[in-house]
This record gives sequence, structure tokens and C-alpha cells, in this order.
Amino acid sequence: MSDKIIYARDDNYLIVRLRDGDDFFETLLSLLKKEDIKSAVLVSSVGMMRDVELGWFSGEEYIKKSFEEPMELLSLTGSVNETEEGKIFLHLHAVLGSSDLTTAGGHLFKATVHQTNELVFLLPTNINLKRLKEGEGLLRLFPERKK
Amino acid sequence: MSDKIIYARDDNYLIVRLRDGDDFFETLLSLLKKEDIKSAVLVSSVGMMRDVELGWFSGEEYIKKSFEEPMELLSLTGSVNETEEGKIFLHLHAVLGSSDLTTAGGHLFKATVHQTNELVFLLPTNINLKRLKEGEGLLRLFPERKK
Amino acid sequence: MSDKIIYARDDNYLIVRLRDGDDFFETLLSLLKKEDIKSAVLVSSVGMMRDVELGWFSGEEYIKKSFEEPMELLSLTGSVNETEEGKIFLHLHAVLGSSDLTTAGGHLFKATVHQTNELVFLLPTNINLKRLKEGEGLLRLFPERKK
Repeated sequence: MSDKIIYARDDNYLIVRLRDGDDFFETLLSLLKKEDIKSAVLVSSVGMMRDVELGWFSGEEYIKKSFEEPMELLSLTGSVNETEEGKIFLHLHAVLGSSDLTTAGGHLFKATVHQTNELVFLLPTNINLKRLKEGEGLLRLFPERKK
Repeated sequence: MSDKIIYARDDNYLIVRLRDGDDFFETLLSLLKKEDIKSAVLVSSVGMMRDVELGWFSGEEYIKKSFEEPMELLSLTGSVNETEEGKIFLHLHAVLGSSDLTTAGGHLFKATVHQTNELVFLLPTNINLKRLKEGEGLLRLFPERKK
Repeated sequence: MSDKIIYARDDNYLIVRLRDGDDFFETLLSLLKKEDIKSAVLVSSVGMMRDVELGWFSGEEYIKKSFEEPMELLSLTGSVNETEEGKIFLHLHAVLGSSDLTTAGGHLFKATVHQTNELVFLLPTNINLKRLKEGEGLLRLFPERKK
């Protein structure tokens, strides 16, 4: 992780630039903790990633695939949630582009920032994005109006 | 459709979780009607879909293709509009991911929610997203400031 | 460029429809200048594009590829920034879909609007999205709280 994270925030936005070599999840989680943000929606993201791990859920387990080469970050969607224990949970799906302009995509498990990652999060001030266990035991999103 | 839709809303957001087996369009339209929302922008969506129908517009008709296997929902973009007759119109384009991490995409015609669909809509309080006929007879977006 | 751009804006949103034949960048830049918008986040975009040029960055130069046939606009993400000289800078990555429902994606260099482009920008009222030179000389995003 770089020694300084470049970002700006107000009541409605968290806008971040991650830097080459940053571990995507580690750096982002570190900033979310520092800013005490547990509910956020990722609405824009451009840049590149390398050493990416993507997955497809079979219903029982994730089939994962690794991509070492740098890829253009074409789309990243999902949200920051709060677990029952008050921990931060990230649920993100990515589309990435190769040098031949073809794409790959899936649940994002792992990535290193390549060149730059420009991320825009919205902060819904009146709604908590809780992630709780549902019947079958999987963690699911439970959006809740703040009281 | 499940007997209960899980969602939260305020003046600016509608955040919804659809559940396994829900017909994507039927369930969403039912919620939009119930909440009386005719203008909204979809800004985030993660989960999975099955029995998906995607299309590419030739200029005269849509060339459609069906995908039965469950796919990761990687990107879904577009908006909720209001027609001249006051009806809700959805215009959405999707990118979906297969088990080999390749992707497919197009205009979304049909989908069944697989596992979960976590959707975040923004509600532009001062702008109506009208969908009206233009010269050639096709329905087009006409964003309008509210008076 | 068409003689009239169809759009609506308020303090938080700029919602635009570009029309068939519009040069994507030229038309958009013309509107942003007219509305004096130098910081904005693109959060939704549907429609089609033709004569598209996409690129992948090798670290030294962009490897570019052109796509003449009309493609569905499946995802477009990024932001409008302000350079040190006060000029508008657009950084956008696109995913596009072909008639066989496969996709291509990369940094968007060039596009002509096909049929329609429905674009929704958010305007972060308290944050400037500056794009300035960093150490190695490349332009990078520097989000800044307004004073």
C-alpha cells in the first residue's frame, strides 16, 4: 500500500484514487475503516488492474481464474456493506479488458492496482446496507432505513 | 415472484434486493408501481441471472439470444422512464459472465434472478425521465426539469 | 453534431440524450462547456455506438482497435475532470456488444452515436475532480474538497 491515499469526501461522496502497486482490497478497506464508512455504493471506476482473480458461483463454490497481465478496468459495480458483527463487507463484480480488447468478468476476489484506479462511491445518508445471514446461511443484502 | 420484496428508499435512493426465482422485470415493475416511481437511474447491480434473453438492434429489429445457464451479473445500466400514457418503461443493457469468465452483453429483454440481485437506483428529484415518440416513431428519452 | 442537444440539469444531475450521427466527444464537450461543468461522474449510459476506437495501455502507448459496425453501449464509466489549465478532460472506459452478443472493451478514444446515447452524470457539488501531472509526468485524478 502506498503511504498516502488520495481522496476527497463529503456527506454524499467518497472519491478515491488508488495507486500502482496498491492491493485493491487492503487499501480500500483501510480507507473505509479510517473514514468510518460501512455503507456505500460504487458508481464509477476506471483504471487498470493486474494479478486479478475473478470467480463464477456454481451454487456451491466459486470457480476461480487468475489473470496476471495488466487489464483495463472497464466496469466495477457493487457496494460496501456492514455485517452483523459491524465489519465491512465488499461485494464487487468486475469487467476487465485485455490487450486484444476482449473482456473477462466475474466476482472480484483479488486485484493489484495497475497505473491508477479512480473510484467514486455514493454514501446513502439515510440507508444502511446491512449484510446478514438469510435462511440458507448465505450472507445477503438487507437495506434498512436509518431510524 | 417472492411474497416480499426487500428494499429501502428515501428521497434520493431506492435500494432493492430481488430473490432467487423472481422474474426480474415483473418483480421490479411491481415494486416501482407500489412506490410510484416513474423516473430512476440504475447505478449499481450485482448478483446472478439465469434464463436471460439479450438483444442487439439491427436498426429494424432485435437479434436475440437466450442464455439458460446461470451467469454472474457484471453490469446493468439504464433507467426507469415514464411514457406519454404514464406507464413505466425500463431501458436496460447488461453484461453477464459465464463459468469460464467470458462475457456476453446486450439489451436486456428477459431474466430470472439467480441467488440474488442487489440493485441501487437514484431518484432525480427535480428531473422527469420522459420517454416519448420522436420523428421516426421510436421511443426516445426526453429528460425534463420539473416545473 | 445535431443542432440541438436534449438535456436537463439541476444542482446534482446532468442528464443528456445524444443523437444518431453525433460525434460523442465533440458533442459532449460542447455541452459541458456551455453548462460550465468541469467535474462530473458518469453513472449510467445506454444506447449504441458506431465507428468506435478502443485502446489498451501497454505502459508506454495505447494499442488501439477500431470497430465500424454498430455496437450496443453496455457500460461506460469514468468522469469529467478539470486540468491545470482549466480545460475539460474526459476519462472513460467502455464495454460494447456485437451482433453475436459478444463484447469488446477498453479506453474510449472515439465514437459516433448510433440511434441514441442516454447519459446520466452526477455533479459532486463540494468536490472538484482535478487532473494534474504526477511524478512520472502522467495526468492523474486529484479529487479535492472545495474551500
